[in-house]
Amino acid sequence: MMSNHDEQFEATHTEGSKMGIDLVGKTVKNKQIIFKGYIDGSPMENDMELKLGDGLKLEVPKGSNAIVVKNLYLSCDPYMRGRMLDFRGSYIPPFTPGSAIEGFGVSKVVDSDDPNFKRGDLVSGITNWEEYSLIHKTDQLRKIEQDDGIPLSYHVGLLGMPGFTAYVGFYEVCDPKKGDYVYVSAASGAVGQLVGQLAKLHGCYVVGSAGTSKKVELLKDKLGFDEAFNYKEELDLDAALMRYFPEGIDIYFDNVGGAMLDAALANMRIHGRVAVCGMVSQTNRTDTQTFLNMFSVISKRVTIKGFLQSDFVHLYARFLEDITGWYKQRKIVYIEDMNNGLESAPAAFVGLFSGKNVGKQVICVASE
Amino acid sequence: MMSNHDEQFEATHTEGSKMGIDLVGKTVKNKQIIFKGYIDGSPMENDMELKLGDGLKLEVPKGSNAIVVKNLYLSCDPYMRGRMLDFRGSYIPPFTPGSAIEGFGVSKVVDSDDPNFKRGDLVSGITNWEEYSLIHKTDQLRKIEQDDGIPLSYHVGLLGMPGFTAYVGFYEVCDPKKGDYVYVSAASGAVGQLVGQLAKLHGCYVVGSAGTSKKVELLKDKLGFDEAFNYKEELDLDAALMRYFPEGIDIYFDNVGGAMLDAALANMRIHGRVAVCGMVSQTNRTDTQTFLNMFSVISKRVTIKGFLQSDFVHLYARFLEDITGWYKQRKIVYIEDMNNGLESAPAAFVGLFSGKNVGKQVICVASE
Repeated sequence: MMSNHDEQFEATHTEGSKMGIDLVGKTVKNKQIIFKGYIDGSPMENDMELKLGDGLKLEVPKGSNAIVVKNLYLSCDPYMRGRMLDFRGSYIPPFTPGSAIEGFGVSKVVDSDDPNFKRGDLVSGITNWEEYSLIHKTDQLRKIEQDDGIPLSYHVGLLGMPGFTAYVGFYEVCDPKKGDYVYVSAASGAVGQLVGQLAKLHGCYVVGSAGTSKKVELLKDKLGFDEAFNYKEELDLDAALMRYFPEGIDIYFDNVGGAMLDAALANMRIHGRVAVCGMVSQTNRTDTQTFLNMFSVISKRVTIKGFLQSDFVHLYARFLEDITGWYKQRKIVYIEDMNNGLESAPAAFVGLFSGKNVGKQVICVASE
Repeated sequence: MMSNHDEQFEATHTEGSKMGIDLVGKTVKNKQIIFKGYIDGSPMENDMELKLGDGLKLEVPKGSNAIVVKNLYLSCDPYMRGRMLDFRGSYIPPFTPGSAIEGFGVSKVVDSDDPNFKRGDLVSGITNWEEYSLIHKTDQLRKIEQDDGIPLSYHVGLLGMPGFTAYVGFYEVCDPKKGDYVYVSAASGAVGQLVGQLAKLHGCYVVGSAGTSKKVELLKDKLGFDEAFNYKEELDLDAALMRYFPEGIDIYFDNVGGAMLDAALANMRIHGRVAVCGMVSQTNRTDTQTFLNMFSVISKRVTIKGFLQSDFVHLYARFLEDITGWYKQRKIVYIEDMNNGLESAPAAFVGLFSGKNVGKQVICVASE
């Protein structure tokens, strides 16, 4: 189900901030999505399993400094695939087989032994794919001030990690200038849709690519891209980019890697910048990627820069202020793909890698 | 013949600034190295041919603003391979089949219609592979102040385009910091040897690779690299780099591209920088380059930056002052591979791509 900030959707999301207290001390079954074991290629639904749980008492041990939360919205993000690999050399450790999947979520505090959080508070940050979670690492959580104008789920999207990724990726990595020719791949995704809109606000010419005609329409009609195309309908990506960028590309915001990155390199302008945000086209971190146009890096003096949003936390407050303001002024919109029920999470997550999601993929576990 | 600034060599190079005047008006046969036609793969000797010339009158047409020069030293540079391809999309146009090869040289003015140059002046810049040249584009020439402490041929090497490439590549592209771990490929070449020495002066730890044990010895014994290795003796480049950089690489100065770039990506430290200067390992500009470690660009937040020295001309005066000073203070040395005679140029040029040269490849056409 795709939705942006329509009224029906907002109505669902801006309620329910007063529950929680009556749950304290109860023992719940606590449905979970368990990570079964390390994968080799693309994630599949049966790499995860729904488990009823052993029973969790909704009470925080005294002195633990932990909190117990009820999870409302869970985020499906492509980076999580990396945590399914048995590889410890990356920026984030792998998942633990037999335990619930970890990921970003919006949750409500049921009980707290941390003086920074009280019952009923809304928080966003790393939680588990389960109905209720005991969270020890509370310092990574951010308290959400309820705002009737902002859907709660946006705190894992527009105002969460993907939105922040788009913000710092565009402003801090791409070195954008008014009038720049900007290309965004996976452009209707959680990050891409915001990059394109920020580029438009900045006075750039923006083209996006996506994998269905529906997404292409969204890019042009809802998200304000100047042009968009379905890369699956293009036999020659290099030629497609040349058609949309006869003058060449100043900024390529790369969410996919591989053949698209290669095609973009062939079409970069002199002193062009490539911000490498993701490689969702690749099935594994050590997939072979073949380039024909690497020499363009020299001849066009291209900068290819990989980045992680976590290096820019000092900009988070500014990001929240900017994006919240622009959203309320209707300068930007945000498209979510909302699935209902924890049990829908594995299929929704796996769907990210075949482009099934239209917009930011979120799981609604409970609306209050 | 390999030489650095030994006495015998300097003696040959610091003479001969007074000839020229008596040649004016004479007609010379003018031996030339002709570019026969566009190539597809690696250049071969028979892509060029020695021609006696149709006779050139050593006199500048009045009003032409041109000069006639006698060529003393000609430079063999890897970028020239790109000009042998029938490809007009690069930063420099292709050679003209049937005409003499163009390249950097040190020359002496025989006759001049340009008020900026007079007979007997020494100049460096783009000339032709022939004994005498009529040069119309005099604005790209630089007048050389004869200096007994600096071999004339260094104006196509240490103080010419390759030296300037090393200087701006290291200081302006690599963002070097004291204590950085620096890796240089093709490290004994015209550019690499200076990059390594500048990195040492900057307080970095420097490892170089080259393709013969002789070059490896030079890197360690003459050029002051901390370590060096022969890449041809390594079955696994990734493992070799891990051995020399157990802490990882902060800066990779890439002169070769391809498999070595891939191996370096696997070994970069967080926020590492790759300056892409050349791709001499590739036989063509659109050779397939296969990468297994492109994902490191994201996970290690690596910046890969291609550059051309021509974007930094505003730094040329500072470069000349710095490098001349450091050379005279014996803080840096420079190794040349000097071939004698214009007819030796094709083989010397072709040899660049199999690593036959030891140090900067220069052709001595005439010593005065």
